[in-house]
Amino acid sequence: MSKKHNFSAGPCILPQEVLKKASESILNFNNDNLSLIEISHRSKPFVDVMDKAINLVKELLEVPEGYSVLFLQGGASLEFLMVPFNLMKEGGKAAYTNTGAWAKKAITESKQFGEIIVVGDSSDNNYNYIPKGYEIPADVDYFHCTSNNTIYGTQMKEFPEVSSLIVCDMSSDIFSRKVDVSKFDLIYAGAQKNMGPAGTTLVIVKDEILGKTGRTIPTMLDYNTHISKDSMFNTPPVFAIYVSMLTLEWLKNHGGVEWIEEVNNRKAAMLYSEIDRNPLFEGTAEKEDRSNMNVTFLLKDSEKEEVFNQMCFSTGINGLKGHRSVGGYRASMYNALPLESVDVLVNVMKNLENN
Amino acid sequence: MSKKHNFSAGPCILPQEVLKKASESILNFNNDNLSLIEISHRSKPFVDVMDKAINLVKELLEVPEGYSVLFLQGGASLEFLMVPFNLMKEGGKAAYTNTGAWAKKAITESKQFGEIIVVGDSSDNNYNYIPKGYEIPADVDYFHCTSNNTIYGTQMKEFPEVSSLIVCDMSSDIFSRKVDVSKFDLIYAGAQKNMGPAGTTLVIVKDEILGKTGRTIPTMLDYNTHISKDSMFNTPPVFAIYVSMLTLEWLKNHGGVEWIEEVNNRKAAMLYSEIDRNPLFEGTAEKEDRSNMNVTFLLKDSEKEEVFNQMCFSTGINGLKGHRSVGGYRASMYNALPLESVDVLVNVMKNLENN
Repeated sequence: MSKKHNFSAGPCILPQEVLKKASESILNFNNDNLSLIEISHRSKPFVDVMDKAINLVKELLEVPEGYSVLFLQGGASLEFLMVPFNLMKEGGKAAYTNTGAWAKKAITESKQFGEIIVVGDSSDNNYNYIPKGYEIPADVDYFHCTSNNTIYGTQMKEFPEVSSLIVCDMSSDIFSRKVDVSKFDLIYAGAQKNMGPAGTTLVIVKDEILGKTGRTIPTMLDYNTHISKDSMFNTPPVFAIYVSMLTLEWLKNHGGVEWIEEVNNRKAAMLYSEIDRNPLFEGTAEKEDRSNMNVTFLLKDSEKEEVFNQMCFSTGINGLKGHRSVGGYRASMYNALPLESVDVLVNVMKNLENN
Repeated sequence: MSKKHNFSAGPCILPQEVLKKASESILNFNNDNLSLIEISHRSKPFVDVMDKAINLVKELLEVPEGYSVLFLQGGASLEFLMVPFNLMKEGGKAAYTNTGAWAKKAITESKQFGEIIVVGDSSDNNYNYIPKGYEIPADVDYFHCTSNNTIYGTQMKEFPEVSSLIVCDMSSDIFSRKVDVSKFDLIYAGAQKNMGPAGTTLVIVKDEILGKTGRTIPTMLDYNTHISKDSMFNTPPVFAIYVSMLTLEWLKNHGGVEWIEEVNNRKAAMLYSEIDRNPLFEGTAEKEDRSNMNVTFLLKDSEKEEVFNQMCFSTGINGLKGHRSVGGYRASMYNALPLESVDVLVNVMKNLENN
């Protein structure tokens, strides 16, 4: 069977060597003749995995002292609820940017807790740009933004200076580029893009911001619960955390975030150049806000789609269909996607032009 | 390396053929040359997995019409919160049994929502029995119980007749014995005992009981959210659901719940007989409430522990250490544990006596 080039938007491609080790661990983990998924999460081999995963996050992202790293469940969708529960004061308010479907869900969820001020909003143009130049009131409990919008192919290149706390949903671009964690108070990310399989959520939170709202927070929704139990308050999603650990190890061994940022820049440059050069295609996101993770584009003549789809299929290109709310195509180029796959796609685009 | 006999309390033993298929799926799922964990959860191959898993639950447990089957995240611990959020009216009350550490956590969580009446409580004797003969007030919004208590080795053999709704945490004995689902309004269970790996939670809920509390329920905590999206409101824990599907398929192919109940009865009879016969050992739970899943016992002479531990180790017996709150030993004999492993343990116990 031909090699696949996996441009899936998430869950998405993971490094082959990670998949190999993950597969082995299901049969025999730690050379112990037991499967990873049939041992106690409190056994030393798994506690070591958890510690290693947490330390790799700290090392790769240069997480400063005073922050906790958590592996939780429920995806970014549960964070949309946990963030206001933990950070918005009774009768408080928060500022959000509305940059896409996920940001909108975060806004909806937070409205149960207080006043929400949408300070930047790109819904007027189907979220094809990142709002800028907005003002964030100084008296909000926190400012919330989404760093990368998978559906629309936009990405924040800079983060605003704020006087309040700043919270960021980095689900779809964490570990893809250098970020100064010290400028954030809380970062969260579903694992299933650059970190691992679906089933766990990474949270990086500055300890001192917690416990200040006066709210009664349900046990499982309180970050302090999970901090005090090292993410083992209840049975953690063992497999998802193990594979995340392997993926972070892979990233470290290849040169870390600095290395992958350069690779990601090269991949993005290759594909965006072709989109801009090739008269058959056009990008859908504003150029200055283009995402390095998710490249959204259209065939100007939609009648050519059938041929293009067939050419993609026959070269092993997978997961290129755009989200239904944007249409066209979306090439997701997460960390594990090799340059070679981008090259294959670019060649198919050239071939379509030449035929 | 010698074969392991895995008595781990959870995450626990899964069938070898399930582990083999799970391992293969990480490298090449569905013969598509892609890993299970790098494809979209909305792709047909995974939607098929989800459908199959739901249908297997319905078939194996004979779930009646009018119930929904959900695969969620957050474990039983998040259900402790979701149950009162969805079922307890504003200013309402609920009845709980306190049969162990997990029941106690469920009680603690529910207290934020209304009046909690503990109708049966075995904490007076370190939870070594199941309370019976209690009365459940007719005006509670629901009655909540825990069917099996892993730490203490007790199990409800019968469920009370109630006039209110009845909710049961079946995390540690679901799929181990016949249960009349029609008698329950809501059943939940963390996957990591008889169903699959850690990382997903099974919920079986009678649709008509929902949406009646007058509460505003956060999106992710509202069962109706997940019902309306077929457990795909957000990215599901793909791997945990796939392995659950495989495990349920294994159960069905071997004869279903009726078959495994008989096997489980035989395993329990073998081990409890030896505990009662062998003068060196004693069980810790009341005989009539003994669990078929978790067998808790002590060496009367604790000085023999070192020798016994060594004998267990050298025969490949794993995970036999009792929970710190009970001490001694705990042999967890979930569905996938073969009779052979129980035989090995019983022989070690006999050998200890004969030496």
